[in-house]
Amino acid sequence: MPRSPAASRGRATRNDVAKLAGVSPAVVSYVVNGTKKVGAATEERVRDAVAKLGYRANPSARALRLGSTEMLGMVMPTAMNPYFAQLAHEVEVAAAKRGYMVLTFTSDSSVVAERDQLEQLAGRLVDGVFLCSTVSEPDLRSLDLAGIPIVLLNNSVTLPTRDSVGVDLLHGAHLAVEHLAEHGYTDIGMVAGVGDVGGDQQDARETGWLESLERLGLTPGAIVRGTFTPDGGYEAMRRLIRSRSVPRALFVGSDQMARGVLRAAHEAGLRVPEDVAVVSFDGSLDAAYSWPTLTSVAQPLSEMAEAAVDALVGPPHERLHLVVDAHLVLGRSCGC
Amino acid sequence: MPRSPAASRGRATRNDVAKLAGVSPAVVSYVVNGTKKVGAATEERVRDAVAKLGYRANPSARALRLGSTEMLGMVMPTAMNPYFAQLAHEVEVAAAKRGYMVLTFTSDSSVVAERDQLEQLAGRLVDGVFLCSTVSEPDLRSLDLAGIPIVLLNNSVTLPTRDSVGVDLLHGAHLAVEHLAEHGYTDIGMVAGVGDVGGDQQDARETGWLESLERLGLTPGAIVRGTFTPDGGYEAMRRLIRSRSVPRALFVGSDQMARGVLRAAHEAGLRVPEDVAVVSFDGSLDAAYSWPTLTSVAQPLSEMAEAAVDALVGPPHERLHLVVDAHLVLGRSCGC
Repeated sequence: MPRSPAASRGRATRNDVAKLAGVSPAVVSYVVNGTKKVGAATEERVRDAVAKLGYRANPSARALRLGSTEMLGMVMPTAMNPYFAQLAHEVEVAAAKRGYMVLTFTSDSSVVAERDQLEQLAGRLVDGVFLCSTVSEPDLRSLDLAGIPIVLLNNSVTLPTRDSVGVDLLHGAHLAVEHLAEHGYTDIGMVAGVGDVGGDQQDARETGWLESLERLGLTPGAIVRGTFTPDGGYEAMRRLIRSRSVPRALFVGSDQMARGVLRAAHEAGLRVPEDVAVVSFDGSLDAAYSWPTLTSVAQPLSEMAEAAVDALVGPPHERLHLVVDAHLVLGRSCGC
Repeated sequence: MPRSPAASRGRATRNDVAKLAGVSPAVVSYVVNGTKKVGAATEERVRDAVAKLGYRANPSARALRLGSTEMLGMVMPTAMNPYFAQLAHEVEVAAAKRGYMVLTFTSDSSVVAERDQLEQLAGRLVDGVFLCSTVSEPDLRSLDLAGIPIVLLNNSVTLPTRDSVGVDLLHGAHLAVEHLAEHGYTDIGMVAGVGDVGGDQQDARETGWLESLERLGLTPGAIVRGTFTPDGGYEAMRRLIRSRSVPRALFVGSDQMARGVLRAAHEAGLRVPEDVAVVSFDGSLDAAYSWPTLTSVAQPLSEMAEAAVDALVGPPHERLHLVVDAHLVLGRSCGC
C-alpha cells in the first residue's frame, strides 16, 4: 500500500496541515478530534491535507482533555480457550455498562509476554487492568509506577495487597466428586490439568478431588495429567486407556480437556457415561455442545466480571478478595 | 481498594515526585521510564514517592521517544468463535516475529462499537490496524485521519483503496460440495450462516454451494439458515429435522454451526455420516474435537496472518488484495 502516511509520520505538524488547507490550526483540531462541526467543504480540505502530509494527531491530547481514558486493559493467557474468551466477553459487557471499553492482550502463557504487556498497558492510557496471570506472583511494578489499579481475575491465588476475584476451585472440585459419588461410583479417577498458576504447585482442583475422596472414605482412582487443552485431555486419556486402568468415573480439570477425553473414549469404543462417567469444570459452551453433553462445574463468569469491573471503576472500597461459588450444570456425561 | 492513586490522578507532577524523593526530575524519569539504571536505594525512594503521590507518567512520552510504538491493533467481532480466536492468535505470533505486540478489541458484531474501537486505536499509538469488520463498508475515517494503515482481514469484500487478506469462500464452498458429490450423494442441502459481512447479502458460501450444484447438474437440497454459532446451527438443524426434509448430505457454513448440527442430529437419533453426511467450514480445533470429527474446509490462518502483518509493517508494497485458497481437511463426518 502507499506508505507515505507511515513514512512521514510525526513530521507534519498541525500548522503544516492548517497552512495547506488554508484554515486556522484550531479548525484542524476540530476536524481531527471531532470536537466541533465545520462546513463540509472545509472538512474535506482538512482531510485532504491530513492525508497528503501524513499528519498524525497527538494521541494523548484527547485523553488529557477528558481526564479519564474510559479504557480498561486486560491480559489473559489465551483466547483460544473458550473459557477465557467468555470471561473476557463478560468483562467487556460489564465494562460497557459503565461506559468503558476493554483492550485485550493475550500472553500465550508466557511470563515475559505478560510482563511486557502490562508495561505497555501502563504506558497506554488505561484506567485499570484485569490480569488473568499465568503465575502466582505476577510482576506488577510497571502498573504500580503508573498508578494504575489492578484486579487479579480468575486467580485462586490471593495477594494480600491486591484486589482479586476468583472462583472457589476446591469447593468446585468437591461438588464434582460428590456428584459422582452420589451416582454410586466408588472408583473415581482424575484427568488433571497442569501448567496453570503456580508452576510446580498441585492444581487446586486436584487437591479438592483428593480431599473429597478422603472425606467420603474412597480410595483415589487412577490420575493422569495434561495441559488445559483438548490435546492435553486427549493424550492423557489415551495414556489411561493404554494402561487399562480407566476408572468407572472421571473428574476432568476443564471442559477443554474433557473434549479430548471424550474423543479418546469414542475412538477406543468406550461409552460415556455407560463405561466411564465424566464430570468436568468450567461450564462453558463446550459443555453444552459436546457429545454427550457434559456435566460440569460452572463458574459464574458474569458475576465475576461485574465484581472485577466494579473494583476497578466503581466507588472507593476496601481491599477486595472475592471468592465466588461454582455450581453444577447437569449434562448427560455423568449418567444423570 | 485504596484508591488514592486513581483519585489524585494527574495532580502530582514529576517535580513533586522528585522533591519528595529527594532526587532530580531526570532521575524520576529514569526510574519511571526504565531508561537508565539508578541505585537500588534511589529507585526505592522514587517508587515510594510515586506510590504516595499517585503520580502517573505521561504515557505518550515513551512512544514519542521511540518513534514507532511497536504496537498493532486488531478489531474483530468476537473471540468466542474459536475461528477468530485462532486467527487473532496467528496474527499475534506473526507480529511477535517482527517485534510487534497486538492490542485487541472485540466489537460483539456491533457496527457502532467497531467504529468507536477504531477511533480509540487511532488515538492510542498503534502503527497499524487489522480489521475483521462486521460490515462490508467499515467506517475508517478516524484511522485515515490519524494516518494509520489498515488491513481488512478475513473479509471476502475487497475495497479498491484498502489492503485486504481473505480466503476464497466461493472456492472453499465448491471443494465442500464437490467432495460430498464424489461420495455419491445427490441430495446435498445446506445449513447456511447469516449475519456476516454485508447484511442482507447472501453469504458467499451459500452462493458457492448453489454454483457447484448447478455445475454438477444437481437439484439443490433443503436449505436452512442461522447465526454463525453453535446455537444457530442447532436451531437451524432442529427446524430441518422437524420439517422431515433432512437431506442425505449437508454443507454447513462453519465448524461452530456444525457443532450445533451434530448435537441436534445426536438428539434426534440421526447418525452422522450414516444417515446424514456433513462437511463444514473453517478447519478449526472444533473440527478435530467434534464427534464424529468434522471434514471441513480449512482456512490457512497462519498464511493469512503473515501476509496481513507484512502488509502493515513490512517493506513498502503495492496495494494488496490477497485471496488465499482453502483446502479440505478430512474427518469422519463426510463418510470418508
